[in-house]
Amino acid sequence: MRKHITGFSNPTVKYLRALRDKKHRQRAGQFLVEGLRLIEDARAAGRVPQTLVMAEGREHALLARLEAEVLAAGGEVIETTPDILSKITGKDNPQSVAGVFDEWDTALAMLDRAAAPIWLVAQALRDPGNLGTMLRTADAVGAGGLILIDDCADPFSAEAVRASMGAVFTVGLAQARWEEFLSWLRAGEGQLVAASLRDAVPYRGAPYAAPCFILVGNESQGLPEDYEIACDLRVTMPMKGRADSLNAAVAGAVLAYEVLASL
Amino acid sequence: MRKHITGFSNPTVKYLRALRDKKHRQRAGQFLVEGLRLIEDARAAGRVPQTLVMAEGREHALLARLEAEVLAAGGEVIETTPDILSKITGKDNPQSVAGVFDEWDTALAMLDRAAAPIWLVAQALRDPGNLGTMLRTADAVGAGGLILIDDCADPFSAEAVRASMGAVFTVGLAQARWEEFLSWLRAGEGQLVAASLRDAVPYRGAPYAAPCFILVGNESQGLPEDYEIACDLRVTMPMKGRADSLNAAVAGAVLAYEVLASL
Repeated sequence: MRKHITGFSNPTVKYLRALRDKKHRQRAGQFLVEGLRLIEDARAAGRVPQTLVMAEGREHALLARLEAEVLAAGGEVIETTPDILSKITGKDNPQSVAGVFDEWDTALAMLDRAAAPIWLVAQALRDPGNLGTMLRTADAVGAGGLILIDDCADPFSAEAVRASMGAVFTVGLAQARWEEFLSWLRAGEGQLVAASLRDAVPYRGAPYAAPCFILVGNESQGLPEDYEIACDLRVTMPMKGRADSLNAAVAGAVLAYEVLASL
Repeated sequence: MRKHITGFSNPTVKYLRALRDKKHRQRAGQFLVEGLRLIEDARAAGRVPQTLVMAEGREHALLARLEAEVLAAGGEVIETTPDILSKITGKDNPQSVAGVFDEWDTALAMLDRAAAPIWLVAQALRDPGNLGTMLRTADAVGAGGLILIDDCADPFSAEAVRASMGAVFTVGLAQARWEEFLSWLRAGEGQLVAASLRDAVPYRGAPYAAPCFILVGNESQGLPEDYEIACDLRVTMPMKGRADSLNAAVAGAVLAYEVLASL
């Protein structure tokens, strides 16, 4: 049974709209995913939305199947006006469907480091687009996933989910403080590598070893000095221009492809 | 002499605010750069703002020097309230200074292909953040610059300028239609390379040759088939995951660093 909502002040509309806000998301333990393509990516990864919100009058074979699955899993299907979908997503031209998913456990303990030879690690990464791009790169290089250190952007924000192109549903994801990450890392095998200028070796042909954890720092500050010092390997990338750094997601990707080729 | 502006409806405020809009920028042939750091990058590259807009009461040695240079060059210095700066930049917490620069000629004829062994080329790149990131990467790999093909985001938008970290002022920049680019390219030396799945060779160890033009396609469509076919070299990058593509700026950077290492 579809539920029809036509009022802007409906409490469900208010709840869904509030999911754009990080604090509300964390309190609710849920996040909103826009667009059939991303929701299908989630489905392919075994995640069915708790709630499906559709624009009135939309018919699509994939949508019908999704609707049936959501209802079978005890979820809710809501049909509403394009204006209300606009209000929920904050977009002038919203996708005609959105799904509400439960957030999942992002504790380090959920990761199996033996599952992959490469892992990406981001410290205080503030831009959700960069975060999503790193998830996408993690998928492409066959990394186990992305570990977020200290205060990063929210991986469940609409922008991060979109930039990940669905990889948020398929690669591992963990969030931890630095000390917690370091003690987890040192409790098993793992080489921690950072791009650095400190007694670094050239990134091409450096002695990478699996499982290799590639650490990228904050967009404007880079890595704190003690984080760099804690790394097993510091590598340097050519900087031929005026600047001494790359975009964080770009640096991580160039390193990850180098590690992939050398392992 | 500083000019004080305190009224929201002042025509100069309206003009500056309109520069956020691409159409207005193109008509005016000017763009707005936010923040002392970016304006200093421009200055170091020999570009002085036509107009400098500052929040009232700001004092800073760099700002004083900048102000003197703008006035010496016949430009205008405007002091205004934080609220009006907010209105001009569209930011809740704007930088305390912004500069208006003349756009410059981005015709292909302005580029000297012999000036660098690597060039980045983006086709229908729609995201200004990706565009700025590619400018930044171009600087890092010592590329001659970025050539924008077909309908790309505006390199003079605030987001592109910010993501470029000032590289928009230092690396070459050209805009052209595909046919125009191709005839320019073929009128001299140059190898056109694209990431592709079509009869492609592995990107590691491919026979790159300078000047090497690395072509990256639109974020969601990739390159049109005939553009790929027109390339001298098609290379493929490992995709170990579920997806078959990378973020456009990431793909360009991984290729550019590979070309840099092999030339």
